[in-house]
Amino acid sequence: MPVRLKFPSSILKINGVRLSTVCANLYQKKRKDLTLIELSKGSNVVGVFTKNLFCAAPVKIAKKRMSNFNPQYCLINAGNANAGTGYQGLLDTKYICEKVADLVGCKSTEVLPFSTGVIGEKLPIEKINNALPSLVEGLSPGNWIEAAKAIMTTDTIPKSISKEIVLGESTISITGIVKGSGMIRPDMATMLAFIATDANIEKVILEKILLDAVKKSFNRITVDGETSTNDSCVLIATCKASNKCIDNSKTKEYELLKKSIMDIFCELSQAIIRDGEGATKFINIKVVGGKKETECTDVAFKIAESPLVKTAFTASDANWGRILSAIGNSGIDDLDINSVEVHIESLCIIENGQRSSSYTEKKAKKIMLQDEIKLLVNLNRGGCHEEVWTTDLSHEYITINAGYRT
Amino acid sequence: MPVRLKFPSSILKINGVRLSTVCANLYQKKRKDLTLIELSKGSNVVGVFTKNLFCAAPVKIAKKRMSNFNPQYCLINAGNANAGTGYQGLLDTKYICEKVADLVGCKSTEVLPFSTGVIGEKLPIEKINNALPSLVEGLSPGNWIEAAKAIMTTDTIPKSISKEIVLGESTISITGIVKGSGMIRPDMATMLAFIATDANIEKVILEKILLDAVKKSFNRITVDGETSTNDSCVLIATCKASNKCIDNSKTKEYELLKKSIMDIFCELSQAIIRDGEGATKFINIKVVGGKKETECTDVAFKIAESPLVKTAFTASDANWGRILSAIGNSGIDDLDINSVEVHIESLCIIENGQRSSSYTEKKAKKIMLQDEIKLLVNLNRGGCHEEVWTTDLSHEYITINAGYRT
Repeated sequence: MPVRLKFPSSILKINGVRLSTVCANLYQKKRKDLTLIELSKGSNVVGVFTKNLFCAAPVKIAKKRMSNFNPQYCLINAGNANAGTGYQGLLDTKYICEKVADLVGCKSTEVLPFSTGVIGEKLPIEKINNALPSLVEGLSPGNWIEAAKAIMTTDTIPKSISKEIVLGESTISITGIVKGSGMIRPDMATMLAFIATDANIEKVILEKILLDAVKKSFNRITVDGETSTNDSCVLIATCKASNKCIDNSKTKEYELLKKSIMDIFCELSQAIIRDGEGATKFINIKVVGGKKETECTDVAFKIAESPLVKTAFTASDANWGRILSAIGNSGIDDLDINSVEVHIESLCIIENGQRSSSYTEKKAKKIMLQDEIKLLVNLNRGGCHEEVWTTDLSHEYITINAGYRT
Repeated sequence: MPVRLKFPSSILKINGVRLSTVCANLYQKKRKDLTLIELSKGSNVVGVFTKNLFCAAPVKIAKKRMSNFNPQYCLINAGNANAGTGYQGLLDTKYICEKVADLVGCKSTEVLPFSTGVIGEKLPIEKINNALPSLVEGLSPGNWIEAAKAIMTTDTIPKSISKEIVLGESTISITGIVKGSGMIRPDMATMLAFIATDANIEKVILEKILLDAVKKSFNRITVDGETSTNDSCVLIATCKASNKCIDNSKTKEYELLKKSIMDIFCELSQAIIRDGEGATKFINIKVVGGKKETECTDVAFKIAESPLVKTAFTASDANWGRILSAIGNSGIDDLDINSVEVHIESLCIIENGQRSSSYTEKKAKKIMLQDEIKLLVNLNRGGCHEEVWTTDLSHEYITINAGYRT
């Protein structure tokens, strides 16, 4: 059961974007599993991809095409990751992109491929090829939620968010979809995310927004500390809106658009955590008072990925000794443990390196029973702060991952 | 159920060592939980301790006393870690050491304190104090297995191993005990280990053996990637045997003693894994062909601590894509993924960055069903190799750690 995550509603169309989904029998259950996103000519497309060395064939190709060509289509299949498939994987990816290009009349280098699913199986290219004509035929601007559904794997709920803002005298829309639930510790991006806006903005400025936004959103979540082979995050601007083109980062319009895109990124990445494999709680870990940003994230991720901290959250057990032990293992050699403070919500649980005098088991238990919990660590040694979002570790996570091959 | 681990037998007494255990009502269940080890005068004692910054009060004190004084007693309590207890924790530790010293007639600085159990609770010093007279009275050379039992927490079986060797014309005995099952990713030592020999050896040489042995044993195991606040490993030489004192590391006798102690360390650390929380499998991960030792351990620990790899082992599912993804995340930037080979037992599963042609699901499944599995990764880029031992991640681990406070 996802933690406080509802089925998406009020999703806005983006001028210049059409989407389509079909069932190509790629996923283990019969459902729509192949998605095409069409971008109007003149769109600016930027992306970030997994740093896993064993990255999937589509990641290698999409990455290259994104920087050298002007993408017009994104083809996404769920059920097969096309990772660990060697040279054949690259050939298969190129083959299906060519088939799309033939059908729609563009160059195959203008098609970006994305895959998610089981690692190491050959991509079923004929199944995909057979499904392409009806996929192309179904393109329509209103299919965002359908697309959010068709890219899912172990996700239990589709994830999509929209926002409308006014830039100067123009109204701009932003819509994003994402999939991800397990194998989540993105390193540059999450499993698969596509966010589009009709804003008129230069590519280099769009890329700046992407990098800033990813850093504080998809790169700040973890379910199980596992960086996937297929993580990709794509930000699209169709430039169809009538706003004056945003060509530098010093304007009010830039700030407003950036903030809105950032908000969408944060909500989408939090949605992954809320729907994390086996999640029963959404945990927000904020580390403040650090000397450097990296030491804040080191502490936050050490806590977030500690199996003992995670299982304590599952049990709603305020086993703060495990949090303290995780902080002690986070690799800051010169940390003065007597300065460290830890709070859950408004309750101080650790100060001066030991249990706070304000702590009572009863107060702590009450907070730990919540399905959404804020943990604050103050290192008291500097002005940096960072935030990370994570889940607990429940029996359901084991059932999902020891149960069948995902 | 521990994986192929039997109740210890044929445990040898060590000339110069006496042990005693009593129930002081410190552990959650009524059982013996307080242990005293007496070392004859002239013993050389060396140790390594956790690097967790939030290390326990007894760790701080034992560490200091070991380097400045000649320890004659080790006092060990199970049930309370005396970690995260601040200044009071240090006072409490010193107090009980003084009480031991008063009873036995030594200096309190000659008593080394050790604790294991729940973090953050005040040490029940009066309960310990009340139990000390009968503890001292019970000292006897034959109590090794009793001691191995009394230091246990979530362990399901006591762990003790002995060995006899001939050095020149003298017969030397070595006996070790260890406790540990969860919170296991020792960083310099494991939870609690005490290994004693009657060999006649200089302290500086004994320390060299300790450091070499720990590196290849207790520092090569992981259950859950969690470094405890209380890890301590103590190596004792009573020097009671008649062998010519080993005073340098160039002799045959040194090599033989070192090898025997190393064997004991390896068996004891493997015993922790075999009795790891929720373990259903014992997994040996060997990484060869590395440029550096550290890159071999990085890859091995990344695989060993991957929740997805661990749950695949629980399911006996040869989900090799997860192994490949873990290798891709281990941080070796210039690794050529096409050179990587992975074998389980004698079956090659990955070569040239993809599934090996010799792989069949049936052969892999047969191996994965074993309760003891060897995984070999060849990076094919150098001459270094390292080995790490780990468990799978089962429902039982969650039950243990989400079930009650340990």
